[in-house]
Amino acid sequence: MRKGYVQVYTGDGKGKTTAALGLALRASGHGMHTYIGQFMKGQHYGELDALRDNPFITIEQYGDVRCIRREEVTPEHIAQAHRGLERVREALLSGRYDIVVLDEVNVTIWFGMLETEEVLALLDERPEQVEVILTGRRAPQELIDRADLVTEMCEVKHYYQQGVEARKGIER
Amino acid sequence: MRKGYVQVYTGDGKGKTTAALGLALRASGHGMHTYIGQFMKGQHYGELDALRDNPFITIEQYGDVRCIRREEVTPEHIAQAHRGLERVREALLSGRYDIVVLDEVNVTIWFGMLETEEVLALLDERPEQVEVILTGRRAPQELIDRADLVTEMCEVKHYYQQGVEARKGIER
Repeated sequence: MRKGYVQVYTGDGKGKTTAALGLALRASGHGMHTYIGQFMKGQHYGELDALRDNPFITIEQYGDVRCIRREEVTPEHIAQAHRGLERVREALLSGRYDIVVLDEVNVTIWFGMLETEEVLALLDERPEQVEVILTGRRAPQELIDRADLVTEMCEVKHYYQQGVEARKGIER
Repeated sequence: MRKGYVQVYTGDGKGKTTAALGLALRASGHGMHTYIGQFMKGQHYGELDALRDNPFITIEQYGDVRCIRREEVTPEHIAQAHRGLERVREALLSGRYDIVVLDEVNVTIWFGMLETEEVLALLDERPEQVEVILTGRRAPQELIDRADLVTEMCEVKHYYQQGVEARKGIER
């Protein structure tokens, strides 16, 4: 049986979530199944529609529609994040998925909605053959230490700096 | 009409091609069309199968099946790359695509199969509404200067260092 690894995509640059999506898509071409749990997301992202008919990729959102700042976190946000983590845990242990993505979990920890230890405990429960991917800015050092593979998406140049808003179909 | 941008994904880390794939997938959920031209690739990557039935994403490979090193480049490789660039040009000017991806084009330039000026000239011909994405390690400075958005995938930690080979469904 193949061995799965723990991957982290972090950093301020683009491409963390889309790299995880692309990896799921590539894996589906090999008949592998992926579960994607999106923390802090409830918006209508294009990937939801794009993946609706893909039998190999399941995507669920755990978050609020409204963007929040770190100081605006409520007990309900914390509860949402924990319900999400429980869904991820079910997916991880179900035996149905080869890859499990915790999208934006790093930011969720940074916002204080989840504790690093809770995510590390989940990784301890991981069946060895399941690949786990953790995305989001500001990954805590403990997750980086724990991961087999860490990629930092570094923003070299960005048109947001020129006042361009996030665009439908490209960034969301 | 929306304005397209020029994006570069470069660096030694993972996620450059998969970020472009994920972006194409997300865009397809919004009904946008993407053309992906893969330079220096002829292997059976999972994305080919995964995208076969997606009416919004077209993917073509221009390369050899065999991996080569920089000092092994032949006139045939150079000709392949130029045929690829011409296919990209057709896609770019066809009016059929919202997004055009030149996958691994940066490496192709670094290998000396294409000149930076040839790619810059193609960008000059770009219809303003088309988003163009250039991926691959070692993007030349002229492309970085020209791009609206540049993300460097930085390898923080990698299990290749532990002697693990590229894995089917994950890296290829």
